[in-house]
Amino acid sequence: MEGSKVFMIDQNRLPWEFSLVCFENYLDVCNAIVDMTTRGAGSIGAAAGFAMAQAALRSVDPDFLLKARSEIEATRPTARNLFYAAEKVYVAALQSANDALIAAHLIADECAEQGRMIGVNGNSLIQPGDTILTHCNAGWLALVDYGSALAPVYAAHHSNKNIRVFVDETRPRSQGARLTAWELHQEGVPHHVIADNAAAYYMSRKQISLCITGADRIACNGDTANKTGTLSRAIAARHFGIPFYIAAPSSTFDIDCPDGNSIVIEERNADEVLWQTGPDPNGDIHTIRVVNAQSKALNPAFDVTPAELITAFITEKGIFSPNEIQRFYGSKQ
Amino acid sequence: MEGSKVFMIDQNRLPWEFSLVCFENYLDVCNAIVDMTTRGAGSIGAAAGFAMAQAALRSVDPDFLLKARSEIEATRPTARNLFYAAEKVYVAALQSANDALIAAHLIADECAEQGRMIGVNGNSLIQPGDTILTHCNAGWLALVDYGSALAPVYAAHHSNKNIRVFVDETRPRSQGARLTAWELHQEGVPHHVIADNAAAYYMSRKQISLCITGADRIACNGDTANKTGTLSRAIAARHFGIPFYIAAPSSTFDIDCPDGNSIVIEERNADEVLWQTGPDPNGDIHTIRVVNAQSKALNPAFDVTPAELITAFITEKGIFSPNEIQRFYGSKQ
Repeated sequence: MEGSKVFMIDQNRLPWEFSLVCFENYLDVCNAIVDMTTRGAGSIGAAAGFAMAQAALRSVDPDFLLKARSEIEATRPTARNLFYAAEKVYVAALQSANDALIAAHLIADECAEQGRMIGVNGNSLIQPGDTILTHCNAGWLALVDYGSALAPVYAAHHSNKNIRVFVDETRPRSQGARLTAWELHQEGVPHHVIADNAAAYYMSRKQISLCITGADRIACNGDTANKTGTLSRAIAARHFGIPFYIAAPSSTFDIDCPDGNSIVIEERNADEVLWQTGPDPNGDIHTIRVVNAQSKALNPAFDVTPAELITAFITEKGIFSPNEIQRFYGSKQ
Repeated sequence: MEGSKVFMIDQNRLPWEFSLVCFENYLDVCNAIVDMTTRGAGSIGAAAGFAMAQAALRSVDPDFLLKARSEIEATRPTARNLFYAAEKVYVAALQSANDALIAAHLIADECAEQGRMIGVNGNSLIQPGDTILTHCNAGWLALVDYGSALAPVYAAHHSNKNIRVFVDETRPRSQGARLTAWELHQEGVPHHVIADNAAAYYMSRKQISLCITGADRIACNGDTANKTGTLSRAIAARHFGIPFYIAAPSSTFDIDCPDGNSIVIEERNADEVLWQTGPDPNGDIHTIRVVNAQSKALNPAFDVTPAELITAFITEKGIFSPNEIQRFYGSKQ
């Protein structure tokens, strides 16, 4: 955010085109969260905080602020960080617009610093020569500056551990094939994209050393909502005895959520399954049908991985097993 | 096969276009197996048998027949049925071209009848109101006339069991979204296509009653090679206590293959992961890039599901658990 303007990388145009978009109005930022111009738990949180600050710049009337907060919170239901940020900046806005601005910038800065520390902590789990499987995108596009799941990957790469990454395509929106692959290329990290179906194959061939994904919401008992397919990888990793880590900042842990059953799973538009968009060999963008014309689709955006399938949580405060999560909540307060 | 001509549905054009192609020459049939104009274990077997018969119509010189058999067997490495059919028709061709023709037609007719019986037998495992998950395409496109995995589905549907099917998209070639969804639509079976990532989500929500897939090769100990992603579904089904069935005719069981480690897994062109083809809303076909431009991909076509994750095999001779597989091999001889 600069002045009253919020700038974002347009993630819907990546990796085909890198462009920044600018929003003056909190409702435009809300739309950008809905249409996934920005996505990823941390980036959604930062955007929600800035949107709340934009609202406060317009008016600090309590009724208006409450309405704006509700509109921001209605954009997407699953990511904890969105609600965390909207609430923090809302409370500050009740003091003054300036307090709201400071709070919103603090959330984004916190998010970046948390990503850096997740990298430092997670790097301790990575051995030289490891092959790491990741799902969806939990890099710097998703969590301001460093990322969650990719922060340890970048830290390991920059400490010359000679690592390699298998990137799940992550259908239907292909955040792995589009965003994670693009980020890893930008950082020079050796990687291969694989079909989501191939992850268990490489686990069965002992070609994956460990798995790291991000999280959208972590319940008190450690049950974790993340992009659909995370559950499938966690079950397969357990089957083959491969460590499965969730990397996330404190703001993703939801003390008001007792367990996975309490997490609302967003059902997204079936068109994301039915159609795909991308450039032809000449660079012209097309949207094509990838499913039989008369068939329908279903599109749950997240699934819940039960705590018992998670080896440990990599946070900015350290590494915690699901059994230690109460200790983590203690350190959070 | 009519006269010396082999006719196929062009599966690369489905579901956008239904068209038949005609091949006069066994080498053209080989190419059609390589480029997947026809695919699926049973259909590959039938095509291989007809190709061998076409070769015999040209010459029954033993050296030529052996060369033709090698060329046919070199088309694809994983499906057992291809080798079964090539050998059977080769042996007949050593007698006469007419024996080869009879043998090839018998293989295709056997395949159809086996599919019908797989349907009858598998239907006994399906309860009214069940939701069935299937992966890839093992319907009548893949196995002459009835199919393997879909034969019980069709039998249950036609006996008014009010079933529903969840169809895995089956990236990268999307045989589920393109071929199975198209077949189910033709047969009027209620179905939804889901991203491969969503299968475990629906299992976790108890919305899948049972899983049925086909097979490309089944080893003596019951380890089963099938389309990549089958392993992942079998592991998840076991985790959630959902029955996981493999449907296949006798010709898919390989008595010369002791276990899954002996099965050659075909690595296909990475372009299948990197690009997707389909029609835009106007019906114009485009091939678009679905992965970051500078990234590479890996593309194993099959994986091996160990016998212990398979509830039972649905065959034309009955239903056998992995423990009963020796009894099955006995009944086969």
